[in-house]
Amino acid sequence: VVTEKQVWEKLQSIPLPGTPRDIVAMNYVRQVNIDPEIMVTLAATGLLADEQKRLQQKVVASIETLNGAAPVHINFVEVKPLELNSIDSIVATMSGKGGVGKSLVAALAAVSLRREGFSVGILDADIAGPSIPRMFGATAHPVGSGTGILPVFSRLGIEIMSMNLLLSQENEAVIWRGPLVSRAINQFWEDVVWGRLDYLIIDMPPGTTDAALTVMQSLPVSGVIMVTTPQNLTAMMVKKAVSMVRKMNIPLLGLIENMSYYRDPETGQPISIFGPSRGEALARETEVPFAGRLSLDPELARQADNGGIEDFKSEDEAAFHHKLLQILPEQTSQI
Amino acid sequence: VVTEKQVWEKLQSIPLPGTPRDIVAMNYVRQVNIDPEIMVTLAATGLLADEQKRLQQKVVASIETLNGAAPVHINFVEVKPLELNSIDSIVATMSGKGGVGKSLVAALAAVSLRREGFSVGILDADIAGPSIPRMFGATAHPVGSGTGILPVFSRLGIEIMSMNLLLSQENEAVIWRGPLVSRAINQFWEDVVWGRLDYLIIDMPPGTTDAALTVMQSLPVSGVIMVTTPQNLTAMMVKKAVSMVRKMNIPLLGLIENMSYYRDPETGQPISIFGPSRGEALARETEVPFAGRLSLDPELARQADNGGIEDFKSEDEAAFHHKLLQILPEQTSQI
Repeated sequence: VVTEKQVWEKLQSIPLPGTPRDIVAMNYVRQVNIDPEIMVTLAATGLLADEQKRLQQKVVASIETLNGAAPVHINFVEVKPLELNSIDSIVATMSGKGGVGKSLVAALAAVSLRREGFSVGILDADIAGPSIPRMFGATAHPVGSGTGILPVFSRLGIEIMSMNLLLSQENEAVIWRGPLVSRAINQFWEDVVWGRLDYLIIDMPPGTTDAALTVMQSLPVSGVIMVTTPQNLTAMMVKKAVSMVRKMNIPLLGLIENMSYYRDPETGQPISIFGPSRGEALARETEVPFAGRLSLDPELARQADNGGIEDFKSEDEAAFHHKLLQILPEQTSQI
Repeated sequence: VVTEKQVWEKLQSIPLPGTPRDIVAMNYVRQVNIDPEIMVTLAATGLLADEQKRLQQKVVASIETLNGAAPVHINFVEVKPLELNSIDSIVATMSGKGGVGKSLVAALAAVSLRREGFSVGILDADIAGPSIPRMFGATAHPVGSGTGILPVFSRLGIEIMSMNLLLSQENEAVIWRGPLVSRAINQFWEDVVWGRLDYLIIDMPPGTTDAALTVMQSLPVSGVIMVTTPQNLTAMMVKKAVSMVRKMNIPLLGLIENMSYYRDPETGQPISIFGPSRGEALARETEVPFAGRLSLDPELARQADNGGIEDFKSEDEAAFHHKLLQILPEQTSQI
């Protein structure tokens, strides 16, 4: 006779239509009964009618390969996307100032965690200036139905949702007032099926206004990684952002200094293009753990620009990876 | 007997309290009558009672030095700040992406025009991430009364209004929803006495949302200078911003590529840290006049960080100055 465990194992081999992840990882399996007959309840969220039909056929066929399987029944239920999501840690990258590398740090963190075997998503909360899709070379449009949207997947299987994926042309301007921007961010949280994730990385927009407020008020953010550069100007903005995060009672996990130096390709000497490194001093002053430096690396800039962020490796990147695992909230559910 | 012209000349030597500019340049002289007695009508806007009194004494004393001056009467009238302003050109620096050097270009443009003898102001519309005061080393609080606010003046006499000048601590976060940000920008326009200016430079916040909309809808912007970097990512955001500006029917004056290259201090060779220069191609593609390149200059970064932007000179800066005068709307009222 067939056990419930056997059914679940079969279900784990069936990808959710339009995604590389299985229906168990995406939390689409809502219930499994084996007695007297096999009954599997699946979420219909975000699936078109013909996708539901094909999924049903696949599930039935798969379970029927089990020896002694009773007749298999599939039942679809409408579930809100938010109820399908179970996310262990939500980590936001933030800075206060634009152009310091928040998105880069978000992307590197996601890649780093993915390489470590974690399930990872990126919610690009920079509605007006979304950078994430380009770094990953993600150009697909998210699929879904009226009941939910499925994220786009990177080559390594990182889930991505970004305003730029929804625009018909990536050059289109999003000319929106704050309330609309906030609504978009809320939708990326409430209407997107992220499924089970170890980490959801949120790429925050610059500044300490609407979008930042919305993220911190509406999403259960576990912690913030602050990004700075050697410039005093950035340090000032970072202090603003730190004071905001503290007011919201969200833990500050670490401070990373990006564009820290440029390594002369001839001599190997570091050159302080934006002035001497101040990251460690700023970390002490703001009482945020210092989480290391990233240099101005032309190869990193090239890969980020050409969708190859997942292929990038460097000494800096390795050090960042190592440090990241120390500062992030621990996970129990490693794949 | 005293002529009206003589009185105006005297008035041109009297500074508006709290500023280095005279009351004529600030448009505070509303009317001059010389017959039968000398009567000068002054705006009281933004002046406290004792400032009005001292100003009155100064004006009377100055006019009385004229030979054959009749008794002098001073009359104060309340005038809205907006009515005191006469600004020939309002030029906004914009990018769509943060951290590409909008504020730097705004500051360099203001300094450049000021050195040329123009009267210049900078309205820092980046409410949440104001960079302008630090570049100029401006730390004074704007003065004023309930009827109007006077800008802060840089060492070269550039008028500056920025959110950071209004905060009790520059590290304070401005955690505001969009409508408040828009209101602040409108106040910088409606409640600040800019007086007569040849150019008001507006440092736009990143993105194409609230603040950008507010500036373009509420202020009579004469044109936009777009700032890019060699990164594809920036080019994408610039295209978004260009499409927004076109939708608002505002002229695009020029496209400047910042962080274009880094000049190796040993060999003098340019190094393309952020990838090969794409500014000219982007200018062609977006049909915006190309307005040259600025390199990653550690000395410029240092001066911008330490309040010394007005002391900075370089080859790049000279080329920018030259180009700027070509692309800006022409002025007739050079001082």
